[in-house]
Amino acid sequence: MLRRHISSPVAKVAAGTFSLAVGWRNLHYTPRNRDVQFLMEDVFDMYSHYEKLGRSDVNKELFEALLDEASKLSTQTLFPLYTSGDDEGCHLKPDGNVTTPKGFKEAYKAFKEGGWVGISHPEEYGGQGLPESVGFTLREIMATANWPLSMYPGLSMGAANTLLAWGSDEQKKTYLTKLVSGEWTGTMCLTEPQCGTDLAQVKTRAEPCGDGTYKLKGTKIFISAGDHDMAPNVIHVVLARLPDSEPTTRGITLFLVPRNLVKSDGSLEATKNVKCVGLESKMGIKGSATCQLSFEDSIGYLIGEPNKGLKEMFTFMNAARMGTALQGVCHSELAFQNALGYARERGSQRALSGTKYPERPNDPLICHPNVRQNLLFAKCVAEGGRALMMDLGRMLDLKSAAKDPTTRDNLDHEIGFYTPIAKACLTEWGVEASSRCLQVWGGHGYIKGNGMEQILRDSRIATLYEGTTGIQALDFIGRKVLRSKIDEVSRFGANVNAVVRPHLFSRGTVGNCARRLWILQKQWRVGIMKVKMSAVGDMDAVGAASVDLLMYTGYVVLGYYWLRMAIAAQRCIDAGKDTNGFYQCKVDMCNYVFTEIMPRTETHFQVMQNGSKIMKSNESNWDIS
Amino acid sequence: MLRRHISSPVAKVAAGTFSLAVGWRNLHYTPRNRDVQFLMEDVFDMYSHYEKLGRSDVNKELFEALLDEASKLSTQTLFPLYTSGDDEGCHLKPDGNVTTPKGFKEAYKAFKEGGWVGISHPEEYGGQGLPESVGFTLREIMATANWPLSMYPGLSMGAANTLLAWGSDEQKKTYLTKLVSGEWTGTMCLTEPQCGTDLAQVKTRAEPCGDGTYKLKGTKIFISAGDHDMAPNVIHVVLARLPDSEPTTRGITLFLVPRNLVKSDGSLEATKNVKCVGLESKMGIKGSATCQLSFEDSIGYLIGEPNKGLKEMFTFMNAARMGTALQGVCHSELAFQNALGYARERGSQRALSGTKYPERPNDPLICHPNVRQNLLFAKCVAEGGRALMMDLGRMLDLKSAAKDPTTRDNLDHEIGFYTPIAKACLTEWGVEASSRCLQVWGGHGYIKGNGMEQILRDSRIATLYEGTTGIQALDFIGRKVLRSKIDEVSRFGANVNAVVRPHLFSRGTVGNCARRLWILQKQWRVGIMKVKMSAVGDMDAVGAASVDLLMYTGYVVLGYYWLRMAIAAQRCIDAGKDTNGFYQCKVDMCNYVFTEIMPRTETHFQVMQNGSKIMKSNESNWDIS
Repeated sequence: MLRRHISSPVAKVAAGTFSLAVGWRNLHYTPRNRDVQFLMEDVFDMYSHYEKLGRSDVNKELFEALLDEASKLSTQTLFPLYTSGDDEGCHLKPDGNVTTPKGFKEAYKAFKEGGWVGISHPEEYGGQGLPESVGFTLREIMATANWPLSMYPGLSMGAANTLLAWGSDEQKKTYLTKLVSGEWTGTMCLTEPQCGTDLAQVKTRAEPCGDGTYKLKGTKIFISAGDHDMAPNVIHVVLARLPDSEPTTRGITLFLVPRNLVKSDGSLEATKNVKCVGLESKMGIKGSATCQLSFEDSIGYLIGEPNKGLKEMFTFMNAARMGTALQGVCHSELAFQNALGYARERGSQRALSGTKYPERPNDPLICHPNVRQNLLFAKCVAEGGRALMMDLGRMLDLKSAAKDPTTRDNLDHEIGFYTPIAKACLTEWGVEASSRCLQVWGGHGYIKGNGMEQILRDSRIATLYEGTTGIQALDFIGRKVLRSKIDEVSRFGANVNAVVRPHLFSRGTVGNCARRLWILQKQWRVGIMKVKMSAVGDMDAVGAASVDLLMYTGYVVLGYYWLRMAIAAQRCIDAGKDTNGFYQCKVDMCNYVFTEIMPRTETHFQVMQNGSKIMKSNESNWDIS
Repeated sequence: MLRRHISSPVAKVAAGTFSLAVGWRNLHYTPRNRDVQFLMEDVFDMYSHYEKLGRSDVNKELFEALLDEASKLSTQTLFPLYTSGDDEGCHLKPDGNVTTPKGFKEAYKAFKEGGWVGISHPEEYGGQGLPESVGFTLREIMATANWPLSMYPGLSMGAANTLLAWGSDEQKKTYLTKLVSGEWTGTMCLTEPQCGTDLAQVKTRAEPCGDGTYKLKGTKIFISAGDHDMAPNVIHVVLARLPDSEPTTRGITLFLVPRNLVKSDGSLEATKNVKCVGLESKMGIKGSATCQLSFEDSIGYLIGEPNKGLKEMFTFMNAARMGTALQGVCHSELAFQNALGYARERGSQRALSGTKYPERPNDPLICHPNVRQNLLFAKCVAEGGRALMMDLGRMLDLKSAAKDPTTRDNLDHEIGFYTPIAKACLTEWGVEASSRCLQVWGGHGYIKGNGMEQILRDSRIATLYEGTTGIQALDFIGRKVLRSKIDEVSRFGANVNAVVRPHLFSRGTVGNCARRLWILQKQWRVGIMKVKMSAVGDMDAVGAASVDLLMYTGYVVLGYYWLRMAIAAQRCIDAGKDTNGFYQCKVDMCNYVFTEIMPRTETHFQVMQNGSKIMKSNESNWDIS
């Protein structure tokens, strides 16, 4: 499905021949189902978890059938459009309609008809009612196959979650069911030309019409899935201001604004209520339509309460952030698989330690240590990230099932602690993994048709949208560390200790890594204490420490999940179950993570203690020329 | 000169209005002439250096006139084509000719007529005969304005250097003069479909015709400036094999192959001797034509001696690597300037430490510590890299002027030590700087018309071509550390100590940084000793340590040049010369480098001691699915 871009007929002929000689290959993708099974069974014991939740229907048989279906859809329908979608992109036609790349419409239809959009939404609204953890796990597989395409149903989920939490019964009946079934899709309209992060500056206005409806006026930008040709309607969830609202984030209200209004008989108005007036040309994710929307007296309906929009918005914002975290896993996995394939085949110099493949004229790239370092970084992010995401799914399951508000609140806090870590760290690592895997390909990685550069371009958005890394870091250090009403730092520390303690005196990789993690966790807490102390009277020191503290935490979390995987794998090895080296590989990777990746914490530990020095230099002198 | 990409007439109108509202801005570029003057006068005392070389003609007056001219050409002619060149790219026409983006031909003409191509080449071949350091410094300014365009004369220089060193008198007369004047351009043809790094696999054959000429047969790929419409001829320097050559790198010979053969009257044959049969579609540097060349009994001429091609090639390879190092400086500078401008204007949340701009509805991004961290990283790479490159230029001047072979050889070794450091570290940092500056723009950085994503895409090639970072690292650890006949590690250590010693007991930033660098240099030498010991009997440990050792060295080198700049700046401050804060800013930046960047060495120090563990895991199990 991947084609080299050729600029002329002359080239076409030549490159055709050439192609055979060089062995250009297509990107490939094989869902890592064995890895998922390992997490489900050996690491997190998820089937017992489902049973405890009273969901014994979610058993191995069901899950593996779903896994199989998701894999088929991914490899047969979604993945073949990954590169062609980038080539073609989306287009805004003169009639104001947006077209998606060839094949997207049909692929979305298959996705929708498979029931994948509402996989974790309640059955009463037409969803599959499966636990969040199941949804997360299967979504990763499908999103790896085609991230830009997966964004359309991803946005629908965000809108659906908002309606589920705050919508009226009427709204749920009319709109939520259609979002869950995938018949219509949804969006989240936050950003405006003058503001993204700072939502206090939102200007879009909503005037009451007197009949319970509102007229919205304003411009929203960067609206993913804001308009397209894959569904007959798009349901926008919009942040806007009521007349005389406070000019802060406490004056923002949520509205539901359908692209096409729904008539009383359920049919749609032909004229659009919201217009797409521009489409962004972007570095990547070109199959995803990023729209500029114009609200020109567009009819909207209040969601939830007036002026409570920001709080309500966080319902979908947290989910959106976790969804974006997944992107880091997806792109790391895809980049890893394709760099590994290349490194196994492509000949380079002989290995430094002597010929490894005497039957070849050269040794493959994989024989070179630095090539392995690049590959393993991606592998460890993909697999470590997958573990973190499944565990987050498990917490979401528990939260959904929690009966009493205290348990619920407690879990909500714990999930809130992990959210900026997952969002920021997995996406930063996803970009690094994509770039390092491109590096494995050498100059060929820079060539469009080979696919690696697309993965890097596509991955690059993830540290920007749904709150940049800098914003995640401020959320983390502010709300989750310094001002959290539950001491999440101690809770995570206790989790680490509980995992580490039984292995403190073990031999081998598990023991070595457990001891390192134990020390690391202690140093991490010392670091946090130091930042807390520097924060007294110097808020800039908090800002200056924020990204380093978050990344540091991310590495501790990565090490924690890798240790859990290594412990589970070692248990299987000891039980004589390692027939093909799968479990030994997990132990090896844990060793890699602790020796090659964990030393990064040292740098972050030092930098986060710099206080607010970064603010001292007079920036007006920075570019004297 | 920068346009937003708009997909439809509808969008054009809307985005037009919108444009005003949001304040989309074009990329801008102002050559950092003040910074160059600082290095020339305060840091490296270059005018005395030129005087000592017997080149008192290269004085402040001359240099600043050149600087002024280069700046004008950069901002008025080259920079306006930077983004349009990316939009349009190069095209291979059905007639086999390659076209460059609109305006490139005229801009190249201005470049050529200004005498910039041969700025440092000997006057006897029509060059300006200026010292290498002058050429380097001015080239940076022009290349920052338009890297893809600057590659065409850059490649000519490589070919010219080869002919200068190894060409016959006849070749110099016929080809070198035309390359130096810029009338024709040149290329270096190394890579073939099956090999880039491993030149032992080169297959292109050269059959003697019996009349002193050769017929070349083969395919070369990734040939920058391989064909284009800016000059009437292209002179290829080609690696090929004579019949019965040894199938190793000792069986490779250099040939000169003109795209159009030169008739005895000096006019050109109309039929091309070398055909461009394909043009790569790349992630970036789209204005640079990356060609697939087909040699089909193409007439060529021997350069230098049979089977000595690899050694001869290193004449231009080292220069090409230094040229590529410059790319890291260029993209860091351009990214920095444009992220700084945005950060000063774009409103975001209020500063954490309280409102800074009460007259505005918000504080600009620059008030946020993490935004500063991103900006300063780029600033420190650009300025630190500029210092390193000027010092390398100074060494090249000394080498060119050296009369006795020992001095020459000595300098050659010292330059060879810095070359992989400059190439690998500056380009890795250039990519990081471009990415972090894009990050400052938030989602707007990901949009094509805003230019930041182009800088990132353009920068990404630099760690790949002219030897990947991994290859630079093996060159460094192998040839420059373990097997160097001159102990360059001690020499650099002694240089550091000489700079540090007078300031070991100083107060303030200079003293603090001097003490840190002193310790760092000691630790670096300990690290190298450890790697040397691990290398005994375990060559994979060398490979595994190589990139970390190289990056570690790079940080020490960066710190060394920043300390030299801070010392020079502090001297000017103490002399009461700091009228506008320029010198204080240098001292502040040095402090930033030592507190925020140098801690990275700790991670590299640890990782490079891991031995060959990375080779232990069985890679065939890495993707069990």
